[in-house]
Amino acid sequence: MLISESVLREFTENIFKAMGCSQAHAALAGDVLIKSDLRGIDSHGVARLQGYVRLWEKKRINTNPDIKIVHQTATTATVDGDAGLGLVVAPFAMQVAIDKAAQYGSGWVAVRNSNHFGIAGYHALMAVEKDMIGFAMTNASPLVSPTYSSERLLGTNPMCYAFPAGKYPPVIVDMATSAAANGKLEIAQRMGKQVPEGWIQDKHGNFTTDPHALKSGGALLPLGSDVEHGSHKGFGLGATVDILSAVLSGANYGPWVPPFVAFLDPPDDPVGLGIGHFVGAMRVDGFRPVDEFKAHMDNWVTRFKSSATVDPNQKVIIPGEPEIEAEKDRKVNGIPLINAVVNDLNVLAERFGVNKLE
Amino acid sequence: MLISESVLREFTENIFKAMGCSQAHAALAGDVLIKSDLRGIDSHGVARLQGYVRLWEKKRINTNPDIKIVHQTATTATVDGDAGLGLVVAPFAMQVAIDKAAQYGSGWVAVRNSNHFGIAGYHALMAVEKDMIGFAMTNASPLVSPTYSSERLLGTNPMCYAFPAGKYPPVIVDMATSAAANGKLEIAQRMGKQVPEGWIQDKHGNFTTDPHALKSGGALLPLGSDVEHGSHKGFGLGATVDILSAVLSGANYGPWVPPFVAFLDPPDDPVGLGIGHFVGAMRVDGFRPVDEFKAHMDNWVTRFKSSATVDPNQKVIIPGEPEIEAEKDRKVNGIPLINAVVNDLNVLAERFGVNKLE
Repeated sequence: MLISESVLREFTENIFKAMGCSQAHAALAGDVLIKSDLRGIDSHGVARLQGYVRLWEKKRINTNPDIKIVHQTATTATVDGDAGLGLVVAPFAMQVAIDKAAQYGSGWVAVRNSNHFGIAGYHALMAVEKDMIGFAMTNASPLVSPTYSSERLLGTNPMCYAFPAGKYPPVIVDMATSAAANGKLEIAQRMGKQVPEGWIQDKHGNFTTDPHALKSGGALLPLGSDVEHGSHKGFGLGATVDILSAVLSGANYGPWVPPFVAFLDPPDDPVGLGIGHFVGAMRVDGFRPVDEFKAHMDNWVTRFKSSATVDPNQKVIIPGEPEIEAEKDRKVNGIPLINAVVNDLNVLAERFGVNKLE
Repeated sequence: MLISESVLREFTENIFKAMGCSQAHAALAGDVLIKSDLRGIDSHGVARLQGYVRLWEKKRINTNPDIKIVHQTATTATVDGDAGLGLVVAPFAMQVAIDKAAQYGSGWVAVRNSNHFGIAGYHALMAVEKDMIGFAMTNASPLVSPTYSSERLLGTNPMCYAFPAGKYPPVIVDMATSAAANGKLEIAQRMGKQVPEGWIQDKHGNFTTDPHALKSGGALLPLGSDVEHGSHKGFGLGATVDILSAVLSGANYGPWVPPFVAFLDPPDDPVGLGIGHFVGAMRVDGFRPVDEFKAHMDNWVTRFKSSATVDPNQKVIIPGEPEIEAEKDRKVNGIPLINAVVNDLNVLAERFGVNKLE
């Protein structure tokens, strides 16, 4: 089913308003989700709306949060999200980082007491629009085992680095630090397919190709998959995200991170508040003139795009390029939603008395 | 052959002095190399000394550089290394970052016109000693192919994040963004062994297990090895390092990075000056009190160290732990050098008229 951006946006805003969000927060939270759907990252868009509602029903999301800076220097800050939607808490934090960068060259904000913040790229792109380099990362529900471990101790902990370019769209590296994202596993589950070796392990820590293993005590593997191929590096990256997002901010880290799914209760011995994010912004002209930087970014992109390839029909993909292509297409042609998602959304519509998607 | 730290340090300093470095620069450059050998990263220690000498002979390293800030804001700067040893240029840049962080909370320095800077961890640890979080990365000679590419367009481009802890040593994530480091390949070549699939490709872009393929037009693969296992993420990380280190600073990037080996000339159409680094420091107390942070770091390390493991005899390894263990051992028992390295060093000793290693 193809739904236009504007219809889906209004629908999403209405749900957030029905949950008690202010108009401004509903519009912002909706914008983060719609941006994800537009960019083709279907797993992080409106398909998650039901998940947010369920957390709110469990009183784990506060739709009227008092988001505030609790500690700061000229270029650093810790923000407390007051258990608000990460979709509004993270943009608040990024705005603090951008304001500090505007004044002092860079700004860095650790966030505690938040929830799932959508796609990291949304927040990092806020900086890019100001000719800054944007950084965004978050910890997440424990699903990934460190190298050698048979426990789930880290989330898929994404990190995003975003760079403005000139004639090209921004270069955006936005990646989970696990070998495969959970969304890909869900697709395999739905289609009854096996997954490649190197994505997951079973509850004993053995490699498996059964996509259902995660539900029965298994775990995702860090980027690198096994130690011979550098899984300790993927673990190190996931650990970096966990420490910057949560140990630095005062959020929960490692296995203490509250699960995104509402049917699992958070650990009863928290080590901090909510989940954590870390965002930052650096002014390009803090290092060299913006036009010079953009001209060299364009040269960088041109050279990598024109690389000789193994298969002449498969070009090198610049980080962020597929998302830009998806956005161009979906803004014009609408956002494709699978029936299961439409049905879930219409259940929400009924529950909150808002117009259904048709 | 086991050589004591002090003997190897004096030897290394003497070589750098004979190349024309000041006493201070020779001591600093020597300290970076010896720290690498102490920490068990043999590929980046005195084994590289001959490589630096050869670049100096080709007049690609300036042993009397005028290292200076060429552009700055309160918390950002670009440093020009004047073609100096990266071993002295990077510590200069990190000191600028630390000084800015002391005053404003954070400091970020992009470096152009530099050379190989040794181990990233050395520089990041300078920040940790001041209760700051340290960041260090560098681009490097093109050896890695982006996903789908059959060309070498990126270096192994390491990134390092270093965090102070309390009762535990610092947590240090210091990793090449390729699946395997070049040093591991060299070991396989020397021992006549095949390497695992997923480390390298041949000149046509096909996977190979022949460690010599790199010399005949092949390339290292990004972390993730193939697209199914996330090699586009390893490519994205390598690209991030390249952009922050070189596009931002005005150094050479991508295939234009001058090779470390002196027998290969730099491209004759440079897009910048020398190679590039990017370093940064953030005050922990810019986010929360240092003692709170360290207590939670200790809790983080304790939890991950005590994780259940697949093999009960193999514990989870905290990033940086093996290097700390090596340093403890080698400070007492000496640094093991293979004969080939001792011979190379003694050739240098003869050439410069300094005392040989015995």
